[in-house]
Amino acid sequence: MGEARVNVGLLGVGAIGRIHATNLAGRVQGARLSAVADVDRAAAAACAAEFGVEAVFDGVRELVNDRRVDAVAVASPAATHAAAIEAAAAAGKHIFCEKPLAYDLDEIDRALRAVEKAGAKLQVGFNRRFDPGFRQAYETARSGKLGRLYRLHIVGRDPFVERLMPKAQGELLLETTVHDFDLARYMAGTEPLSVYAEGGAAAAAAAGMSGAAGIDTAVVVLRFPDGVIATIDNGQTAYGYDQRLELFGSKGGFWVGNETPYRALLADGEAVRSPLPLHFFPERYAESYVAEMAAFIDCVRNDAAPQVGGRDGRAAIVLALAAMRSLEEGRPVAVAEIAAL
Amino acid sequence: MGEARVNVGLLGVGAIGRIHATNLAGRVQGARLSAVADVDRAAAAACAAEFGVEAVFDGVRELVNDRRVDAVAVASPAATHAAAIEAAAAAGKHIFCEKPLAYDLDEIDRALRAVEKAGAKLQVGFNRRFDPGFRQAYETARSGKLGRLYRLHIVGRDPFVERLMPKAQGELLLETTVHDFDLARYMAGTEPLSVYAEGGAAAAAAAGMSGAAGIDTAVVVLRFPDGVIATIDNGQTAYGYDQRLELFGSKGGFWVGNETPYRALLADGEAVRSPLPLHFFPERYAESYVAEMAAFIDCVRNDAAPQVGGRDGRAAIVLALAAMRSLEEGRPVAVAEIAAL
Amino acid sequence: MGEARVNVGLLGVGAIGRIHATNLAGRVQGARLSAVADVDRAAAAACAAEFGVEAVFDGVRELVNDRRVDAVAVASPAATHAAAIEAAAAAGKHIFCEKPLAYDLDEIDRALRAVEKAGAKLQVGFNRRFDPGFRQAYETARSGKLGRLYRLHIVGRDPFVERLMPKAQGELLLETTVHDFDLARYMAGTEPLSVYAEGGAAAAAAAGMSGAAGIDTAVVVLRFPDGVIATIDNGQTAYGYDQRLELFGSKGGFWVGNETPYRALLADGEAVRSPLPLHFFPERYAESYVAEMAAFIDCVRNDAAPQVGGRDGRAAIVLALAAMRSLEEGRPVAVAEIAAL
Amino acid sequence: MGEARVNVGLLGVGAIGRIHATNLAGRVQGARLSAVADVDRAAAAACAAEFGVEAVFDGVRELVNDRRVDAVAVASPAATHAAAIEAAAAAGKHIFCEKPLAYDLDEIDRALRAVEKAGAKLQVGFNRRFDPGFRQAYETARSGKLGRLYRLHIVGRDPFVERLMPKAQGELLLETTVHDFDLARYMAGTEPLSVYAEGGAAAAAAAGMSGAAGIDTAVVVLRFPDGVIATIDNGQTAYGYDQRLELFGSKGGFWVGNETPYRALLADGEAVRSPLPLHFFPERYAESYVAEMAAFIDCVRNDAAPQVGGRDGRAAIVLALAAMRSLEEGRPVAVAEIAAL
Repeated sequence: MGEARVNVGLLGVGAIGRIHATNLAGRVQGARLSAVADVDRAAAAACAAEFGVEAVFDGVRELVNDRRVDAVAVASPAATHAAAIEAAAAAGKHIFCEKPLAYDLDEIDRALRAVEKAGAKLQVGFNRRFDPGFRQAYETARSGKLGRLYRLHIVGRDPFVERLMPKAQGELLLETTVHDFDLARYMAGTEPLSVYAEGGAAAAAAAGMSGAAGIDTAVVVLRFPDGVIATIDNGQTAYGYDQRLELFGSKGGFWVGNETPYRALLADGEAVRSPLPLHFFPERYAESYVAEMAAFIDCVRNDAAPQVGGRDGRAAIVLALAAMRSLEEGRPVAVAEIAAL
Repeated sequence: MGEARVNVGLLGVGAIGRIHATNLAGRVQGARLSAVADVDRAAAAACAAEFGVEAVFDGVRELVNDRRVDAVAVASPAATHAAAIEAAAAAGKHIFCEKPLAYDLDEIDRALRAVEKAGAKLQVGFNRRFDPGFRQAYETARSGKLGRLYRLHIVGRDPFVERLMPKAQGELLLETTVHDFDLARYMAGTEPLSVYAEGGAAAAAAAGMSGAAGIDTAVVVLRFPDGVIATIDNGQTAYGYDQRLELFGSKGGFWVGNETPYRALLADGEAVRSPLPLHFFPERYAESYVAEMAAFIDCVRNDAAPQVGGRDGRAAIVLALAAMRSLEEGRPVAVAEIAAL
Repeated sequence: MGEARVNVGLLGVGAIGRIHATNLAGRVQGARLSAVADVDRAAAAACAAEFGVEAVFDGVRELVNDRRVDAVAVASPAATHAAAIEAAAAAGKHIFCEKPLAYDLDEIDRALRAVEKAGAKLQVGFNRRFDPGFRQAYETARSGKLGRLYRLHIVGRDPFVERLMPKAQGELLLETTVHDFDLARYMAGTEPLSVYAEGGAAAAAAAGMSGAAGIDTAVVVLRFPDGVIATIDNGQTAYGYDQRLELFGSKGGFWVGNETPYRALLADGEAVRSPLPLHFFPERYAESYVAEMAAFIDCVRNDAAPQVGGRDGRAAIVLALAAMRSLEEGRPVAVAEIAAL
Repeated sequence: MGEARVNVGLLGVGAIGRIHATNLAGRVQGARLSAVADVDRAAAAACAAEFGVEAVFDGVRELVNDRRVDAVAVASPAATHAAAIEAAAAAGKHIFCEKPLAYDLDEIDRALRAVEKAGAKLQVGFNRRFDPGFRQAYETARSGKLGRLYRLHIVGRDPFVERLMPKAQGELLLETTVHDFDLARYMAGTEPLSVYAEGGAAAAAAAGMSGAAGIDTAVVVLRFPDGVIATIDNGQTAYGYDQRLELFGSKGGFWVGNETPYRALLADGEAVRSPLPLHFFPERYAESYVAEMAAFIDCVRNDAAPQVGGRDGRAAIVLALAAMRSLEEGRPVAVAEIAAL
């Protein structure tokens, strides 16, 4: 391709930011990591040095206004996403933004209006849509091979990490389940009508943190049109990242299982052992982070619409808010009570 | 063993009755099929002839009062179970009764009082407790290897059979889900507090029977003490009997998968193929039917308490009734609204 | 079926004899266990009592001449098989005979002539042909789904049992590999041309029995017409019975894997564990023993030719003898050096 | 790390050369692709342009003598390997060389002497040693968890590619099986004593190329000290790359299975389908190519000995030559007949 590379400025060099830095610098064709910003300027500088990048900033404003930046990748904390999107849009830059767009619908709506007004492209970081297994599930459902789809079951469990526990009320739903809400919409191909949720702090309690607030385990039931029901199963595991999907229709079922570092068995006098699942998101979804960024760069270069846009980012938050209300009030909540999708 | 065999009179020679006949006649040590009764006397006679049994009856009363009968196996339709139990208890016979005990709690309570008064043994046909995989799941949970158990997920789907569809309201829950309610109680080791259910007639609709009443697909959420949550997933499949279980605790998870007629793979230019699950209950649970009957016979011979008693049979019905109310009223239902367990 | 049952006299009540007794008495339709004989008359009597059989003998001659016996099942030690076949044939009885027919070709040829002269039916106990997985492998190969078949790999390993170790030279090949030789011929559908074998006493050595004679580990390469190559892999395991098959052709491959007592996984912080294979032949091949005997009974009742006859029993021994010569002389041995198949 | 990057000059931009170019340019930390050479200078220039490399050559001599080159990666055809190694060593450069070192032992010995004389580092491209699954197999064997190892079985089958068929006599063994010979030595941890091989042109024949010379299917039996036996199984498949390993010892077994693009199942009314294996070496061994090059760069930077050296490259060729003689003469061949290892 003779096209110029897309120069991407990265905002945020935490765990997920460094994944995007590595991919933009070496694995995404057509992209170049051209600037790095973080409120911790030293961290930004270290990251920039590692990848041979000159431009280093500590603020979003300098980043989005730098002429070496064609597009911005937002990987800072969730509370800063909406403002970063608005700033980037105002500066005429395209935006890749990590999930969640924000915890607050008004903030999201303001950011999306800014994007629309600027004519910018906005892709939201629902990377699981770019995972080969989930992508195959989607295509199988759309192909009709499963007949009429009427049941979805999504397992999204994190490895138990003590320092992250227990999660504040809503944090689980807004930061983690948000991926599952997006997957459910993506797979179903329609918008859910109601949400019922149950949850608890079972993992924290088992770890002796029973006095703490928050939830770490959740079951969510989503009702879609035509009697389609999706369930989401969140928790904290002892055996690594548990990321599975089951689609079920009148002609068949489709299951996405956990990936492992290699495919092997060890049999001795006691059991047949196989490896644990890939431990957490950096290993499990490594290729999907490359693929989502490559898709974003393609959209920018070819002036195409992102596959996962602002409307998707907002819808997942609406469902998370509905689930939170269901937890509080102990009843199924109509999505329309929160907002139209 | 020098002990005399237990002579068992069988009531009902339908699909499940014939399974018990075969096992009592040839596969359960210490048992003898000694009499057969069915309202269709010709069917009873044919079954008796096949297994070399002399005593043939068309009524429960003759069966339970026959002196060649030490114990009765009730495999007639659900509506006749409670009366058969009462008659057998009154005749001083021990009873193995298929699920469900009855659709009605008053009937059940009357039957259980008759059993208690007679000092008879009553085992309910929750055969899945005797399946090697589910048994191992139970023992693993009790052993502490999973740590604190806080999530159970039970998949119980039948192969789609058009003539059985759609099921009348409640039939799915009282005849099929009743097994899953029992498994949930068995695995959790405690009694559930509340039940939430969603359902629909998705399979019937997909088969073009959309005008019909009833449900064929259900999702049930059970809340147990200490934040333990169980989900039950019922439906009708294109790929055979889908009978799976997932237990999840603070130290690990345990999964029971589907059994197949053999373990093999065929790889060609298109895919790697493995066999479908065993098609339905006669194949999938063949060994558990032998094992549950052997356990019943052992109880009779050794004057021991059955592993699955009347209280278990009743509790599963209470949960089914709670799920029906939840479906009707669109809200979680406290089990205590229906009855104490 | 209105046909009379076939009365079967059992010779030998060791491990395999008791399997046949159980099946003939309770699981094979159309059969009846009518007499039991063993050189240990007390053992024969105990077995007879357990299954309600009156006729008990200590010699083959009384058994085969008893008028309550229509057919004989030979499950005594290998050294007695050929004489038992001759005696049964002379008495006009049909014969089911365990493998191997004999260690000596002349004995086998004499026995087969006696069978032919008497017009008796002779089925050899190559039960693996009646296993659902191996049967499916055979049918897949014959169906053409694998294209032109040119590679077979058979794993046949026993669980390590110290008292059986090390095996005398030839015992492994004549008693165990004989099953694999039969499977190779059955699957290939042609007769092998040459045999190359390597072996050793690795399992015995690992267990500190290095001074002993014999072999416990063998690799056999069979060359069939048209460049088809089969390998056989024998040994002694720490993890149970290892019985696998791989067929490989121009259009695909087919694998038969090990069966387990149930299908389940346990994941904890260390590994994902699944159950060990079924431990040994009584568990692994339980259903195939029923099926082979049912097939024999069908042949007797319907005057049909057995699926596994004397010629098959002899051919497997010829291959074992060729493998023994290869081991001794360190070279590939043409099958024709031993005998025509 | 403050260390300077290692500048690597690449010789050969065919399929495997481009894999190394991509990895050196973007995925191997501490490396830089600094020059590209190919007898097809236009191909070299195109590759260089794609990765932003200035130095382009058509000959090995210019490449190895360029001052921008610290080390050479040899990915040209096998016939040129030995001369390239000699030239690079003479120029004082370290060398990563693709397998096979050469088809001829004298050439190999001359090249290895040149490397030794120059004090250069030479790593041979046996990438499978760097695959996570095979690495885990190796470590498990060394850990003692398998007890005394006495059986290895290696399956190395390519997807059937018509234009590559049939392979000239020896090409299969020298270009493909050479990987398996290396794996066998690596896993066993000792040197084999004898080699027996059988082979044919079954895949070519099935594809209607029966008149052609050469082999495409091979079975090799290697005898190691202490009765350890390894088998190698080569062929051409309809279902993709088939790369498996089985280690078997007195305490257990270890199996490496095929990797797939994702882990999923599709069940419909006919079968349960899972994806085919990754199609060929670029997909299957993608990560191992990164890992082997990273290991080579580490050796250069830290002045350490390569994990797979010239002696390993030579030994695998000695075994291939022994297998060729076995095929020709129809007998087991002592390795010492070819050369000392």
